[in-house]
Amino acid sequence: MSIRIGIMGYGNLGRGIECAIRHNPDMELKAVFTRRPPETVRILTEGAFVYAAGEAEKHKDEIDVLILCGGSATDLPEQTPEYAKWFNVVDSFDTHARIPEHFANVDKAAKASGHVGIISVGWDPGMFSLNRLYANVILTEGRDYTFWGKGVSQGHSDAIRRIDGVKDAKQYTIPVPEALESVRKGENPDLTTRQKHTRECFVVAEEGADLERIEQEIKTMPNYFADYDTTVHFISEEELKRDHSGIPHGGFVIRSGCTGWEDEHRHVIEYSLKLDSNPEFTSSVIVAYARAAYRLHQEGISGCKTVFDIAPAYLSSFDGEYIRAHML
Amino acid sequence: MSIRIGIMGYGNLGRGIECAIRHNPDMELKAVFTRRPPETVRILTEGAFVYAAGEAEKHKDEIDVLILCGGSATDLPEQTPEYAKWFNVVDSFDTHARIPEHFANVDKAAKASGHVGIISVGWDPGMFSLNRLYANVILTEGRDYTFWGKGVSQGHSDAIRRIDGVKDAKQYTIPVPEALESVRKGENPDLTTRQKHTRECFVVAEEGADLERIEQEIKTMPNYFADYDTTVHFISEEELKRDHSGIPHGGFVIRSGCTGWEDEHRHVIEYSLKLDSNPEFTSSVIVAYARAAYRLHQEGISGCKTVFDIAPAYLSSFDGEYIRAHML
Repeated sequence: MSIRIGIMGYGNLGRGIECAIRHNPDMELKAVFTRRPPETVRILTEGAFVYAAGEAEKHKDEIDVLILCGGSATDLPEQTPEYAKWFNVVDSFDTHARIPEHFANVDKAAKASGHVGIISVGWDPGMFSLNRLYANVILTEGRDYTFWGKGVSQGHSDAIRRIDGVKDAKQYTIPVPEALESVRKGENPDLTTRQKHTRECFVVAEEGADLERIEQEIKTMPNYFADYDTTVHFISEEELKRDHSGIPHGGFVIRSGCTGWEDEHRHVIEYSLKLDSNPEFTSSVIVAYARAAYRLHQEGISGCKTVFDIAPAYLSSFDGEYIRAHML
Repeated sequence: MSIRIGIMGYGNLGRGIECAIRHNPDMELKAVFTRRPPETVRILTEGAFVYAAGEAEKHKDEIDVLILCGGSATDLPEQTPEYAKWFNVVDSFDTHARIPEHFANVDKAAKASGHVGIISVGWDPGMFSLNRLYANVILTEGRDYTFWGKGVSQGHSDAIRRIDGVKDAKQYTIPVPEALESVRKGENPDLTTRQKHTRECFVVAEEGADLERIEQEIKTMPNYFADYDTTVHFISEEELKRDHSGIPHGGFVIRSGCTGWEDEHRHVIEYSLKLDSNPEFTSSVIVAYARAAYRLHQEGISGCKTVFDIAPAYLSSFDGEYIRAHML
């Protein structure tokens, strides 16, 4: 019998989950829940249902794990504890500063209902976090570096779109090659924000808009751009569509540190991702953790978990004997 | 109270463990066990004891985890199940083909005595295995590549030393840059043994030895060299000591695969290590898993485990709240 998955929210991430389920034959998509009128939502999976988000509770016995695909700002802080009352849940909550609070809320709800809730699953937080942890327990003396990109930052693209006179925009975050090289060599440099990443913006302006003003507004925008070297390119709507419609991303987690009686040996651990589709990769990670949520629940475990709490074997559709023989 | 560690076998790995314990303030080295006369073995740690290997059982109540630093060919298949009768144990058993059998033996002994035995810990098997598993559960359609080096292969160096007329030798395994590049680009190439790695040998010949014969014997040696492009350099004993006395190693685990409804998006996951000291890095991994063995045993768990069975949080000296706040 396959693991029955529900998807809450059918945007880029929800569609990514649907695709990821197709790549995991031990799972099936049972239903998509949406805040839009269900009859207006077309999904790809034959035999799966589309229901109104408000109806979710009614379908709790048809679904083993509900994957929450809302945003971290307002959706997930409410949804994850709420749905943990009826379902095993997995989310990709990524507001780092609020993780302790979110963990506590989900833990309380999940323990009360006897479900498993796995939060902050994806690649950062997620695989990058795991790699920071593994690297830190091995090289206890050392320094951590995380670089993001080259990739599209949704938040930064949105910030540009809110500027007066901007019709559309795409922003790429790019690691500075020299900084990356120095870290890789184990030089343990001190890097400012500006020295780690540059930002490149492709902007479609409205006709007659003041391009110089737009460029200034972008480059001086606090938090988003002011601390970075930012390049702005004005392009046509057609060019944006043709050359910048993908959602690639990626990045690097590097720890360099030393071992030896007198710290005499140096080591560099590097984990990197090069992703054509950020939401589809994130989804693929989430679906593996949905399998773990299902299994932990089967074992009678409940409460909130993160990637740190899940033994890797729970993620695989293969059994221990197989993975020991083939991957160890 | 700190975790009390014992080391069985005081070669390169045993010394690496001793150094790694010094980097982990929640642990202390209690004793080193050796097959040599204990009074001839000098260790670095003040206050730790050196005992004869045969005396280990007597000290079982003084040690929380015994780390087995013997070889995989003959030592560990006997030692790990044997010492699991009295201790929680961790080893770095690396004969891939015999892991299932070793697992079964250790599992039986550890379950019978109520101890935890973690086998095959290090970087390959170990961190590389973990990365193969994580990458496979995420990208279910894809291909795996493992490259080793640049680094010293002890086995290959030993094989050269056994040739008549060879006084000493060091062998480096080197990934072929073009192969690595193609894999990184996600081209999923089919690679022969020869296309993945080259071998470089630094050989000190005995005076008057037939260098041409030695070179031929190396290059045509079945299993070890015949399937590779091998370069042989004859150098002096001084040069070998001066330029090749380190034990560096490293390598790359790469999986490239696709996602999307029609497999339309490509992703590359890469994990790499650049290590000044192979045994010290291996030791640092082992010591983190010794902490896990201790904790699992405290929780009443017993039996054989591998890196696949250990939730990452067990490896850290910090608690869940701290690692969620700082590393997630």
